[in-house]
Amino acid sequence: MFSKDTYLQRRNRLKKEVGNGLIVLLGNEESSMNFKDNWYHFRQDSTFLYFCAVSLPSLTAILDCDSGVDCIYGDELTIDDIIWTGPQPTIASLAEKSGITQTAPTSQVEKQIKKAISDGRSVHFIPPYREEHVTKLSAWTGKPLSEIRSGESVTLIKAIIAQRNIKTSEEIVELHKAVDLTAAMHLSAMQYTKPGMKEAEIAAKVNQVALAADGQLSFPIILTKDGQTLHNHYHGNIVQAGDMILCDAGAEIHSGYAGDMTRTFPVSAQFTETQRELYQIVLNAHETAIAALKPGVQYKDIHLKACTKLTEGLIEVGLMKGNAEEAVTAGAHTMFFQCGLGHLLGMDVHDMENLGEQYIGYSDTLKKSTEFGLKSLRLGKELEAGFVITVEPGIYIIPELIDRWKAEKKHEDFLNYSKLESYKSFGGIRIEEDFVITQNGADLLGTPVAKTVADVETIRKQSLEQ
Amino acid sequence: MFSKDTYLQRRNRLKKEVGNGLIVLLGNEESSMNFKDNWYHFRQDSTFLYFCAVSLPSLTAILDCDSGVDCIYGDELTIDDIIWTGPQPTIASLAEKSGITQTAPTSQVEKQIKKAISDGRSVHFIPPYREEHVTKLSAWTGKPLSEIRSGESVTLIKAIIAQRNIKTSEEIVELHKAVDLTAAMHLSAMQYTKPGMKEAEIAAKVNQVALAADGQLSFPIILTKDGQTLHNHYHGNIVQAGDMILCDAGAEIHSGYAGDMTRTFPVSAQFTETQRELYQIVLNAHETAIAALKPGVQYKDIHLKACTKLTEGLIEVGLMKGNAEEAVTAGAHTMFFQCGLGHLLGMDVHDMENLGEQYIGYSDTLKKSTEFGLKSLRLGKELEAGFVITVEPGIYIIPELIDRWKAEKKHEDFLNYSKLESYKSFGGIRIEEDFVITQNGADLLGTPVAKTVADVETIRKQSLEQ
Repeated sequence: MFSKDTYLQRRNRLKKEVGNGLIVLLGNEESSMNFKDNWYHFRQDSTFLYFCAVSLPSLTAILDCDSGVDCIYGDELTIDDIIWTGPQPTIASLAEKSGITQTAPTSQVEKQIKKAISDGRSVHFIPPYREEHVTKLSAWTGKPLSEIRSGESVTLIKAIIAQRNIKTSEEIVELHKAVDLTAAMHLSAMQYTKPGMKEAEIAAKVNQVALAADGQLSFPIILTKDGQTLHNHYHGNIVQAGDMILCDAGAEIHSGYAGDMTRTFPVSAQFTETQRELYQIVLNAHETAIAALKPGVQYKDIHLKACTKLTEGLIEVGLMKGNAEEAVTAGAHTMFFQCGLGHLLGMDVHDMENLGEQYIGYSDTLKKSTEFGLKSLRLGKELEAGFVITVEPGIYIIPELIDRWKAEKKHEDFLNYSKLESYKSFGGIRIEEDFVITQNGADLLGTPVAKTVADVETIRKQSLEQ
Repeated sequence: MFSKDTYLQRRNRLKKEVGNGLIVLLGNEESSMNFKDNWYHFRQDSTFLYFCAVSLPSLTAILDCDSGVDCIYGDELTIDDIIWTGPQPTIASLAEKSGITQTAPTSQVEKQIKKAISDGRSVHFIPPYREEHVTKLSAWTGKPLSEIRSGESVTLIKAIIAQRNIKTSEEIVELHKAVDLTAAMHLSAMQYTKPGMKEAEIAAKVNQVALAADGQLSFPIILTKDGQTLHNHYHGNIVQAGDMILCDAGAEIHSGYAGDMTRTFPVSAQFTETQRELYQIVLNAHETAIAALKPGVQYKDIHLKACTKLTEGLIEVGLMKGNAEEAVTAGAHTMFFQCGLGHLLGMDVHDMENLGEQYIGYSDTLKKSTEFGLKSLRLGKELEAGFVITVEPGIYIIPELIDRWKAEKKHEDFLNYSKLESYKSFGGIRIEEDFVITQNGADLLGTPVAKTVADVETIRKQSLEQ
């Protein structure tokens, strides 16, 4: 965690920008797997962590914009708890580290909120993504569940985004650490894979690297020979010579910051000719996007630039035809690249996604598209120095989409369906890295991991020789 | 999963025993970490899995006791979903495997339930342990949240326990597999540990073994040099020669069945003299309990027998004094063994704990004690052939408890506080294995793992020499 002053400044700015009323920040609860006390690993809410720094379950913070007082509500452990959990620092001592000197039992929250409401003051909260937050807020405010589900404070959301959007230099240090660990995970996958292994074995190795460093996963590992499935969490296949593995994985470190990278590599020592061709197309689109990163440019335009580069490559190998820019304008490239070029990254792997994509990825003047392809672009707005983003173009050959579009004769002027037919079992390729936008361009986060065809093949060759 | 007939028989028996009305079984939802679409790994509800076998999120089953009709409610994937998740079998095709031939969209659930209520029929459900189940049941029944939270059907609970309590031979096969994998996890910890490692490194290795076999953890790994803390999930310490490691971990396999074992071993090649002495005391209590396992005996009595054996050993080494049986009757041994001897094991690591401990661990005539120690015994009732249970005695030296009791002069006739003072940094020891109760005794589940002092030290010696 950062200095006490950092948190004091963050909260003071937040209260000032929200203006008046109470800001209620809900920490997360333990999350039950198959019975109440069997928990998934605890993950604190990122906004709570950002402003209050305490990573314990069942806390609530109330920041009073009018009086300026901040208070954390929670219940201290009993001797019975300590037998099971060991001695723990008190909530008060943890709160103090972020400069919050008032704490009170959870039972006091309702009184505070109800009093504010009866005094005609505003009660600001962000959209809940866990159901227990909905029922708690409903009980505390006396409002029905439906009003809580749509009762978020846009003022609060915008004020939070204004701060979390721009990463400070001390946050960048943490993000470098998270992406360093993420890079180590990817290198281990490339080095560990042998023909005949189950996907689960390789994913387990990747997971081990994160946990051994006392980290967590920032999201469930995608590791599959069926890379055409964008979020594939099935790990039951055996990988064989000739297959490619797509690994999309990231670490989360203690401070809460996340990494998010993807590499695609051959199970054999080399890519096949076809794999190498399409890999190079994705890499070219990736490099094109990176070269375009700088403040003042809309990320949507960089996305479209990468799509055009991708399309040019696909035209060259005969999978598409016609003019690349016209094809992208028509949306024909979404046969291969159905999603977006990237997203914000921070304490959340899709940073602040819980605050609403329109607010975090777009702006009052730039609305998210509803078109296939662009509707999956999570970030469209103008880049600013301090934004941290992912760049992750890909080519995904999805047989179900080919069949459907072919039957509809969709984009026939741009798609070469007869050639595409022979690629149906190709799979998918994605290359993803994380960048911080600087004053003039962008810096790669974390240790570089092999990315060119030659570098990837060198690692695979060495690993298979061992 | 088992044969179609198995599931048909299970549901038919359940409907017969419940008698009338609708049985509503809620499958689990995806569980959000830090924003809606960033999920923990999916875990289906065990009761849903036991009766309906489908492990997909957001399903509901309604079993109609009067008409005999079973139906699974859920929503099929769209082409948009398939791009992200790959082609998936339909709910209908999965339901059919457990002999359920009717499926319908989720939107139909509310109509079914409201109609049953307006017809004056009973609607049975089990206690929800996830908040979204509370709000769904509230919406479907039109009852307030508080009535849902205390509105479970005891008839349904008892009928479920009557079946899940007794494991069939095909379930025992699955449990053997789960404990085999669990045993492999423990062996790997014993073989992998080296002085200077972080606890997290060893825990990551244990985790890897489970995941590499395409399993999951049945609960978060406890792996610590501070074994005196019963549920210690902190992995930040460096382990050194002279320390002991307590590892309590288990695998869950695809069918949903769980293993749960504990081993305690020295970081050095050998236990210290003091460690060896107390380890042998725990092992003796463990063996005493195992020898007593058979149908018709109350598990509470086996617990007390193990406590007496433990106390005899503690008297021998001078940490306790007086008569062992009198000490146990007084509860003095709970200075060292604050919890229970074991619990039921099955699809849940604490099997069916969500149905209520009084129902699963006790009986109409045997109520759970409220005394310190016994109140943490999860299983007290008479054993029956087919029960699967854990046996896990331990010695835990908890400095906070020593200080508190010493100040209160508690159990001074039985506790040797002056000697205890010098053990304050000792830590904790637990030895845990899983057993199925047979007609005449009990069988160990899974591959045996080194347990005697000599066997544990042999493995440690070999590992450190490598």
